[in-house]
Amino acid sequence: MPSIAEKELYLGYTPDELERSAYARFFRPQMAPLAGHVREALLTGAIAHELMPPVSRAGDLHHPGYWAAETGYSTCLDGSARVFVLTPMPGVTPAMWDWWFAWHGSEAQRYKLWHPRAHVHVGWADGEGDLGRYVGRISNVVEFVGPARMNLTIRFVRPSEAGLDEKRLVASGEVAICARGGIAGTPMETGWLIHHVRPVEGGSEMRSRFWVGGENVRPRSMPGAVGGVIGSIASRLVPLKAIQASELLVHCAQEMAHLAAFLPELYATFGPAHQQENRE
Amino acid sequence: MPSIAEKELYLGYTPDELERSAYARFFRPQMAPLAGHVREALLTGAIAHELMPPVSRAGDLHHPGYWAAETGYSTCLDGSARVFVLTPMPGVTPAMWDWWFAWHGSEAQRYKLWHPRAHVHVGWADGEGDLGRYVGRISNVVEFVGPARMNLTIRFVRPSEAGLDEKRLVASGEVAICARGGIAGTPMETGWLIHHVRPVEGGSEMRSRFWVGGENVRPRSMPGAVGGVIGSIASRLVPLKAIQASELLVHCAQEMAHLAAFLPELYATFGPAHQQENRE
Repeated sequence: MPSIAEKELYLGYTPDELERSAYARFFRPQMAPLAGHVREALLTGAIAHELMPPVSRAGDLHHPGYWAAETGYSTCLDGSARVFVLTPMPGVTPAMWDWWFAWHGSEAQRYKLWHPRAHVHVGWADGEGDLGRYVGRISNVVEFVGPARMNLTIRFVRPSEAGLDEKRLVASGEVAICARGGIAGTPMETGWLIHHVRPVEGGSEMRSRFWVGGENVRPRSMPGAVGGVIGSIASRLVPLKAIQASELLVHCAQEMAHLAAFLPELYATFGPAHQQENRE
Repeated sequence: MPSIAEKELYLGYTPDELERSAYARFFRPQMAPLAGHVREALLTGAIAHELMPPVSRAGDLHHPGYWAAETGYSTCLDGSARVFVLTPMPGVTPAMWDWWFAWHGSEAQRYKLWHPRAHVHVGWADGEGDLGRYVGRISNVVEFVGPARMNLTIRFVRPSEAGLDEKRLVASGEVAICARGGIAGTPMETGWLIHHVRPVEGGSEMRSRFWVGGENVRPRSMPGAVGGVIGSIASRLVPLKAIQASELLVHCAQEMAHLAAFLPELYATFGPAHQQENRE
């Protein structure tokens, strides 16, 4: 990724940004307590991986109802970790999230709204600003996950690449944000993520899925079996720890619940209607 | 243990089993949230081992009242871990648990009722089915404890072998399920467990005790001092981690509270009255 000056790598808004940024009124450093089902998952600790299907079963997200575990984490013998999080989002539509993923990646001040206590920096790898889309683009992010500041690459892919049926998503008014994630500066993509957003009474709910390490590791641009073998050898050397999985669970639960609380207002202010106005 | 085909090693009931099994209406995949005192113990984390007496003090279970720690875990300098769990069981009698321990070990479909999210397989080492007793028998179980699927041997022993007074138990209407536990395929028995069930107003309460690793390790069939030395050397090489103790605490708290909620109904359906009928 393009190198970022260390002085740009700070949490939160500066006093100057708080005064001048167009987004400042949405920068809300107070975060709500963890939801009851998230607390339960954290106290329960790592669960049987059989309760948390692998990414090859992502298509099951199309089924109605819920999986055996919607919020929880597990570690597997191949060194991988699985983290699932359910986030209820009253008043939010799937389209708002589709917009958000295209919009947030162009400016750190936008990205920081999402997790004011962990998000540090963001930029598109293509060097461009807003293009109104995220699929096919790579987002370079700097964020804390637990105590570790990480430089990550999020390469957004089409839902079909993750095993989802795009026509079915559209037909049911659902959105699935899908990506391959990696550690910046390494030749490996280490995981998959899916945020599946579906309409429910009064709003929507997000079902986040992370599959990291182990069988999910591939050298970049080497998607086949050979890449899989190389990835699995590499990842066995550094198995994911349960604590890392629980930190990812906390991070995801926090950022999704936090943004959902004001996403409708943000969308009304900076979303398609606003962008349309600006073009006129 | 007799080898089990990998295809038999799955969590839960299959759709076919749900339709045909005589026990299917007792297979309840939803588990209640962890009880308040269990949450407190998990958040508190490992405590001073002095609050959790060793197995040599098991006889103190006969005393009225409660121990300094009834729910909690600790790790000791000898590499051992201690895990205690108190489970209130309204409507349950100690005799029901005595029946359960003899009954559940003959079929995986019975065993899975107990912990629908962690229990995988069970079978008696003697190859027999129901004998109406468990003391003197070895149960081979496959279960997840936290994220790890384990093959364990549970060798049930008389309460007197664990230091309890059998006459006193009978006189007070109490039951104590006592066993030596081990990892299948190893020459060591690694721990002790006691589930002490005593009547209380409105039902009973179970006081579970696990002493694992360290001084509790013995080569199988070598109960004396020499066995103790060998065990303690072996176990020092792989000290129990606090996370393993907390996973065991969660597992025990979940399974005991889960089964207790329908044990009276299960006992009425498949217990001694039913078994008597079948014999007539």
